[in-house]
Amino acid sequence: MRLLSNEEVATVLDWPSVIEELRKLYQEVGSGISVSTPRTDLHHPGPPSPDGSPTAHYLKAMGGGFVGGGVAALRLSSDRVRFVSNPSGLRRVKDPVRPGRWLGLILLFDLHTGELVAVLPDGVIQRMRVGATNALADDYLARPEIETVAVFGSGDQAEAHLQALASVRSFDRVRVWSPTPEHRGRFAARMQERLERPVEAADTPEAAVAGADLLMTATNSRQGFVPVAWIRPGLHLSTLQRDELTPAAIQAVDRLVVHTQLWEVNATSAGLPWVEGRLLRDHPESASVAWEGYPTLGDLVAGRAPGRQRGEEVTAFVNNIGLGAQFAAVAGLAWRRCRELGLGRELDPEWFLQAMHP
Amino acid sequence: MRLLSNEEVATVLDWPSVIEELRKLYQEVGSGISVSTPRTDLHHPGPPSPDGSPTAHYLKAMGGGFVGGGVAALRLSSDRVRFVSNPSGLRRVKDPVRPGRWLGLILLFDLHTGELVAVLPDGVIQRMRVGATNALADDYLARPEIETVAVFGSGDQAEAHLQALASVRSFDRVRVWSPTPEHRGRFAARMQERLERPVEAADTPEAAVAGADLLMTATNSRQGFVPVAWIRPGLHLSTLQRDELTPAAIQAVDRLVVHTQLWEVNATSAGLPWVEGRLLRDHPESASVAWEGYPTLGDLVAGRAPGRQRGEEVTAFVNNIGLGAQFAAVAGLAWRRCRELGLGRELDPEWFLQAMHP
Repeated sequence: MRLLSNEEVATVLDWPSVIEELRKLYQEVGSGISVSTPRTDLHHPGPPSPDGSPTAHYLKAMGGGFVGGGVAALRLSSDRVRFVSNPSGLRRVKDPVRPGRWLGLILLFDLHTGELVAVLPDGVIQRMRVGATNALADDYLARPEIETVAVFGSGDQAEAHLQALASVRSFDRVRVWSPTPEHRGRFAARMQERLERPVEAADTPEAAVAGADLLMTATNSRQGFVPVAWIRPGLHLSTLQRDELTPAAIQAVDRLVVHTQLWEVNATSAGLPWVEGRLLRDHPESASVAWEGYPTLGDLVAGRAPGRQRGEEVTAFVNNIGLGAQFAAVAGLAWRRCRELGLGRELDPEWFLQAMHP
Repeated sequence: MRLLSNEEVATVLDWPSVIEELRKLYQEVGSGISVSTPRTDLHHPGPPSPDGSPTAHYLKAMGGGFVGGGVAALRLSSDRVRFVSNPSGLRRVKDPVRPGRWLGLILLFDLHTGELVAVLPDGVIQRMRVGATNALADDYLARPEIETVAVFGSGDQAEAHLQALASVRSFDRVRVWSPTPEHRGRFAARMQERLERPVEAADTPEAAVAGADLLMTATNSRQGFVPVAWIRPGLHLSTLQRDELTPAAIQAVDRLVVHTQLWEVNATSAGLPWVEGRLLRDHPESASVAWEGYPTLGDLVAGRAPGRQRGEEVTAFVNNIGLGAQFAAVAGLAWRRCRELGLGRELDPEWFLQAMHP
């Protein structure tokens, strides 16, 4: 049993390999060979926080397998969540478990023996699987030749998606917008150096999107902010969650693909009515979209749904929610490579086995 | 972070404490304070077995919390499953992960800090939580004075339920029936010594059930075997799974309580059509029962549904499926007691934390 660190995982993973591993995975997903269980979200009341705001414990779990990789994974996180009122409603803050420390784990099992073969933190893999999944979808939906990429958001996920995109498309320039000038400025400087091409911070959302061939959104917005007015022929939209396109923009897209039709299952303690209320209203706009009518990334990669057909089509990929199988594929790749290199801490596998028959 | 063994868990748990901990838990369950997520079952194809029978990897997970105990738990198991044909259909065999070793774990989290505080094997707790849950239900549903207990099944679960029952009811004698004379004989001898009262092996099912005040079933049967003919006024039926009562017997019961209305969620690979077929037909009879009309154990313990009202009533408890919250309550109790006694192996909690913000 190998215990890996984020540093070790980052050492062995590169964008092209992760994207190709996911391409193999989504072949399986589209043909029903790889399956996942719905993400389960469990909330119970926590102690009052020093600032008086209510808190909750949030235990999240999702499972999935990748037959080609010979592994199944269970990804789980245990978070202390605090709900802080601000003018636009309740904002959710994840407090650390210990100062500067969070708890997110991937348990990796060998499909052949059933053994627990690795325990990995989910940080690096979480970001890479999201960025790589969107880039994989972009590869089927964006025009082969694109010049200008607009990025909304300047956080880690925006960075991950933009880096991943560079593995499937060449592009000439990037324009980034996020509300805080300092954040978008830093993002532009960092990504210009990394991508070795012009990345500029835009002064307005409209300036970022003007003339873009691909618009990627990586924000925490719970309200659609991409209006129909931004949509022009040939544009590809690639979002990291389900609330970023306005319902009108969704209607204006010619070809929309969602990540999956497997949605989360919530269990919220009656001791947390405010959390329940928030969760129920969590996706107020996107809850009204008939997502079940759209094909999935698995359909796309397995050839059961067509990708882009014409240059002037408007396409979109909505990464509505994650899949446990993504963790099986990416953590499986990291585990194999770490094992080859002798990376990680070996723990006695007997610690996690028992003599009692189930 | 404390790593515990089955031996340590068994040392610190006793039936009365486990039953009382579960009584507190079901008060929370009945009022919606403690919640659980549906059990998720994930099946992917495994390698062909030496005897040629198809195999699967089965990853199972279930989560739940217990606010009074300050903990949430995720219980998971990773099993190698082989389907063997026999005259009555496919029989499921769980093969060990390593010779004589199985993988079932409980991860226990502190609701206040979010930290992973313990990892426990699920063997001892699995058996105790089932037996104690049925005994708790029996305490609300069986007549206060009972004399004869009939037991169907001679495995570990039958033993656990019978031992747990002895904590909530005194009774004078036990009659056990299971198909193999040697098994029921050994069970009778063992339990007679342990319970210090007569336990006899019956020659026929009818001889076991004749004159019984309480009939407990702990079998693997996938077809109801308790007919209406066995039901007499005042009888209490207590089953460890959903398939043991015939639909007609269910109809003949005056007051029936189920464990929970939270059913499992299946995800089965298309690479396993035979497993999918089997799973869909897994509970052919009980699938036709309108379980959703019955109150749950939480309703009963929280006073939202009445227990037995009259001596001649026929009552039944059907332990249809487990709840993650049971593992939170029982593992939480074991963890607190092991901590007090200094039992278990301390692991560095930093191994399971990361610096990356989720």
